[in-house]
Amino acid sequence: MNYNFSDRINELKPSAIREILKVTQNPSVISFAAGNPSVETFPAAEMAEIAQDLFTNRAGAALQYGVTEGYTPLREITAARLRDKYSIGSPNDDLIIVSGGQQGMDLSAKAFLNENDTIICENPSFIGSLNCFRSYKANLVGVPLQFDGMDMDKLEETLKTEKNVKLIYVIPTFQNPTGRVMSLEKRKKLLELASRYDVMIIEDNPYFELRYSGEYVPAIKSLDTEGRVIYVGSYSKILSPGIRLGFVCAPKVVMGKLVVGKQVTDVHTNLFFQMLAHDFLSRYNLEEHIEKIRALYRSKRDAMISAMEKSFGEMMNFEKPDGGLFIWCGLPEEYDGAELCKISGQKGVAAVPGSSFLVNDRDVSPYVRFNFSLPTYEQIDKGISLFADALREYLGR
Amino acid sequence: MNYNFSDRINELKPSAIREILKVTQNPSVISFAAGNPSVETFPAAEMAEIAQDLFTNRAGAALQYGVTEGYTPLREITAARLRDKYSIGSPNDDLIIVSGGQQGMDLSAKAFLNENDTIICENPSFIGSLNCFRSYKANLVGVPLQFDGMDMDKLEETLKTEKNVKLIYVIPTFQNPTGRVMSLEKRKKLLELASRYDVMIIEDNPYFELRYSGEYVPAIKSLDTEGRVIYVGSYSKILSPGIRLGFVCAPKVVMGKLVVGKQVTDVHTNLFFQMLAHDFLSRYNLEEHIEKIRALYRSKRDAMISAMEKSFGEMMNFEKPDGGLFIWCGLPEEYDGAELCKISGQKGVAAVPGSSFLVNDRDVSPYVRFNFSLPTYEQIDKGISLFADALREYLGR
Repeated sequence: MNYNFSDRINELKPSAIREILKVTQNPSVISFAAGNPSVETFPAAEMAEIAQDLFTNRAGAALQYGVTEGYTPLREITAARLRDKYSIGSPNDDLIIVSGGQQGMDLSAKAFLNENDTIICENPSFIGSLNCFRSYKANLVGVPLQFDGMDMDKLEETLKTEKNVKLIYVIPTFQNPTGRVMSLEKRKKLLELASRYDVMIIEDNPYFELRYSGEYVPAIKSLDTEGRVIYVGSYSKILSPGIRLGFVCAPKVVMGKLVVGKQVTDVHTNLFFQMLAHDFLSRYNLEEHIEKIRALYRSKRDAMISAMEKSFGEMMNFEKPDGGLFIWCGLPEEYDGAELCKISGQKGVAAVPGSSFLVNDRDVSPYVRFNFSLPTYEQIDKGISLFADALREYLGR
Repeated sequence: MNYNFSDRINELKPSAIREILKVTQNPSVISFAAGNPSVETFPAAEMAEIAQDLFTNRAGAALQYGVTEGYTPLREITAARLRDKYSIGSPNDDLIIVSGGQQGMDLSAKAFLNENDTIICENPSFIGSLNCFRSYKANLVGVPLQFDGMDMDKLEETLKTEKNVKLIYVIPTFQNPTGRVMSLEKRKKLLELASRYDVMIIEDNPYFELRYSGEYVPAIKSLDTEGRVIYVGSYSKILSPGIRLGFVCAPKVVMGKLVVGKQVTDVHTNLFFQMLAHDFLSRYNLEEHIEKIRALYRSKRDAMISAMEKSFGEMMNFEKPDGGLFIWCGLPEEYDGAELCKISGQKGVAAVPGSSFLVNDRDVSPYVRFNFSLPTYEQIDKGISLFADALREYLGR
């Protein structure tokens, strides 16, 4: 039988990364391809204790239907922490709980993008978000990402020339895939341009609290005086991703539309884990917990950087990120990261070619993304050494 | 600031029911408005035991990212049970875990409906699904629901006259809001018409296993020989709704598109509860558990029917359903259920006016939907008696 699918779904390809991840289920493959946190960072013992309490004393509430906006005490404790610690959110804002950060992007796109409306993205950017915007048949326009964030001249040019620009999508802090941080100056410039051209900004900030070195740069949302920023945060990297908990802080009017959108999508987010997360945040010391995560990832980042210094030598450049989960490595422009990753795959090491993150996904990229949070120290050493073998083979050295 | 929202979200109104549910958070209001299962039916003790095991022995896997299709053992045990017990699913089908049944509708709409494509719905029908289809800017066409299901003559007329009909959406078993069951004859006719006019069917079947009386009628999916039925099931009514677990059984080609759609929506469903549900299904006797739920709801249905017989008398008709969660009550056509529900609200009893379920939501309906699963026996007696007062006032008796 022939199925007459929608245009949007016919145009959408499965994420190359998720396809790579399936390959890495082979346990003999060393994977730097994932974006997974380390299992060691999950507060399982504390969660177990809270879960027992919930099942014993509040099972009726935790297992019943909840409201679309999310569990009120979790919304409140999340909003208060964002406000008190990072000056994120004003009295005109509200906060909704979503089923992971990805849903924040989906609901924002649903609320703003008509078919053929334009959304401007950093190039490269997170493929999950790019595909989400594609699923709304939006016009995606990439603006090159520099070491200190989006190229602001190119952004202004794009805002001048493109029609129906509704949104600018950025991951300003420890960007995926590059690990780069948008400078404070550029954050201010971005807000100024968004205001001048009357465009909304989606600030996707899942790695915000994973800083291992360098100086704190405030969230764009904390600099927003006009209600122009939709802030998408996540508990995936500081509690755990399998529970699918994220949040969106946005102007109340926008929030109303996100709630209507979420109602028809999944009614509400798993309530048991909303209550569990709230209890974790109120009973335990989240700041200490995050500090432990930082210490672990700092050490893993350093281990991978050392291994690259030792094994890659002059063959491949790598950027030392101040945070996040990824190291971005590049060859000169004439090379193809996808070819290199094919060879490394044959040697039992998986990494993601830079082309997977391009707004125009038929483009070639000389970059490769490495994840350092998931592999063990042994896997980092062995995997980077094997990848260097692939490099030598690819470069013919 | 003025926000330039998408057309789809501007046209979408918040669900009237969810607004009513907010009012019923006032504990002095007796609510027949919800669609919630009874808290007594949640297997909290068994879940607590499994959760402890998961946190102790498999926390790493349960809290980590999972694949979009869902936890493989849960997919397998769900598919096997559907196949063995109800002949649902063929070797050409596959099963995906979704974040509650609502997401099954959302992903099906995403995969099939272009803007202005037509979806045919029973009239009245479940508002959450109707709003979901509206969010894709689809053309919703209602076909009247008779006591034994959709009016098949009207359906054929509609299939003949409407353009770009892609989907027929039905809740054939213990329909929401009416509690009615589509006859076997009509199920066969529906498949025949769908085949003749080359249209897909969404079979939304959350109440399938909640039968308290009458004869079993097989699922439409079990009669499907062409791969024309997308079957949406839910664990909300047999395990608990707060965990947001549903499933879709559909032809493999369709499944591939649903997976791509889910990837960009929420990546995957809460993995911890997918594993927990699997362990519940494999360790405990689900059939006994469902039998207990049936016994409870049968008794509550009978209690509400008795109370209506006693209090409503000749004032209002009510249909005794063989299953599900709702009793559908009607006045003669010249009356307005919404007016009646306003008066009952003032007396402290909430129910949902039939107009909330109409495909054209500006239409007036003389019907009212009552839920019997959530209220206690005392609330049923007192609430129906108060509702009868409202009836007397409304009818001027």
